[in-house]
Amino acid sequence: MQLTRAHVEQFERDGYLFFPSLFSPAEMQVLLDEVPRLYSERRPENVRERGSDAVRTNFAAHMYSAPFARLARHPRMVEPAVQIFGEPVYMHQFKINGKMAFDGDLWQWHQDYGTWKNDDLMPEARAMNVAIFLDEVNEFNGPLMFIPGSHTLGVLEAEHDVTTTSYPLWTINHDTIAKLVARGGLVAPKGPSGSMILFHSCLVHASTANLSPWNRVSVYLSLCAVSNHIRRFKRPEYIAHRDFTPIVCLPDDCLLKDYEVSLPWRDGTPAAALQPALAG
Amino acid sequence: MQLTRAHVEQFERDGYLFFPSLFSPAEMQVLLDEVPRLYSERRPENVRERGSDAVRTNFAAHMYSAPFARLARHPRMVEPAVQIFGEPVYMHQFKINGKMAFDGDLWQWHQDYGTWKNDDLMPEARAMNVAIFLDEVNEFNGPLMFIPGSHTLGVLEAEHDVTTTSYPLWTINHDTIAKLVARGGLVAPKGPSGSMILFHSCLVHASTANLSPWNRVSVYLSLCAVSNHIRRFKRPEYIAHRDFTPIVCLPDDCLLKDYEVSLPWRDGTPAAALQPALAG
Repeated sequence: MQLTRAHVEQFERDGYLFFPSLFSPAEMQVLLDEVPRLYSERRPENVRERGSDAVRTNFAAHMYSAPFARLARHPRMVEPAVQIFGEPVYMHQFKINGKMAFDGDLWQWHQDYGTWKNDDLMPEARAMNVAIFLDEVNEFNGPLMFIPGSHTLGVLEAEHDVTTTSYPLWTINHDTIAKLVARGGLVAPKGPSGSMILFHSCLVHASTANLSPWNRVSVYLSLCAVSNHIRRFKRPEYIAHRDFTPIVCLPDDCLLKDYEVSLPWRDGTPAAALQPALAG
Repeated sequence: MQLTRAHVEQFERDGYLFFPSLFSPAEMQVLLDEVPRLYSERRPENVRERGSDAVRTNFAAHMYSAPFARLARHPRMVEPAVQIFGEPVYMHQFKINGKMAFDGDLWQWHQDYGTWKNDDLMPEARAMNVAIFLDEVNEFNGPLMFIPGSHTLGVLEAEHDVTTTSYPLWTINHDTIAKLVARGGLVAPKGPSGSMILFHSCLVHASTANLSPWNRVSVYLSLCAVSNHIRRFKRPEYIAHRDFTPIVCLPDDCLLKDYEVSLPWRDGTPAAALQPALAG
């Protein structure tokens, strides 16, 4: 998977790229079949919605689920990031965001790099999100909303919001959002299961609650240039990984064949990965 | 304003009709200019969002605001309801719903007639909503979502939800919504300021929070056939009116000319209108 020159220019201008139906229904089914088991587990990696048992986000499934461990090494997801950064990448964060039917709560306006910088001391915005839709994303199930071009302003001032949802987030104030939208507008890419989005870690984004009867499960690989690894281990390892080994991709058919992958957390999260540590 | 036979058939089948840009920008501006003053008033008719000073809904502005008193007698809004019911209508409820930028909270899945029946003892579903968009409604500012055809099932079982938002509502459970959507799908009419929606009082609807920087103010006339007037005055009069006098329409240009209208609550809400009463 190589981005064209036009893709790269579009990414630099808008801060995101959208590839509808990049993965096949059969590839997505392998992952969808695994989600209920993962979400039903009582492990710290499952963060549930406020006042509900629905999973808001599952962390680090690539450490204990074979299908997701393969996805974490998928060339269609990893190679574009390597190309953009011009160096190998490692997995900074791996999330399966639920946005479940009826229960999926909103995500406030934020930049991911704001958190990675503030909490993890990641030196530069040389990390990005590569997301795939396991379910169809439509206008009713809380699609991601982007402010195109907002990544070009770098890190914006943010406040730590620990009350609105079940997950603390560095969020951007309303005046700033209004100005950014007046300048760049809003977009909400929608498409079938198997669609992929790449977006810059400074791109400002949000999503509303899902009041529809349709789940909107998406997987986010947060890929960081190896030289740009985090310097502080303040958050637990299952949220912000400390293994900076470059990702080695599997073949392109890795969701459909049982390639061998290591699953170091298969029998549970190691105690060290649950704890903060003092230095990076 | 007369509905065609095709309109009436569509209304009977789907439960709603949508008329984009039925009112002109000049007509809408007269109303938009009045909203900030109404929303800034400290009177019981302004219900504010949970944890915010933003107005969620303003009741009964037609009793104390000249532009909205004229809108309440507008032939484009009132005549279709008279036509559908085949008899005069009175104003059961009059609302200016804010759904303000950033602060506008969601409305859970509900039927309006569920509340009118349970709380107000309205005998039949011979009342309907006629709504106009004062602001553009787009995919980002929390459009109304309808389940087409859901009105044909009559009154559905509902539970009184007094915790999710600042306004108590009889809401429909998730299993029922999932079944209704599997049968009828979902629609969210979007359009410019001045667009009008008519919908059946049993049509199941909801809307998500507005995370965008754009207000989504809409006005709802809940028009009830006079013979179908409410039988219990449990809710304050500013929420469920007790004057069953048929509405007499003004001319079609009534938003642009200063036709005389009475404003009985101009100097404040009468004490009797704030109180529940025992019988209708």
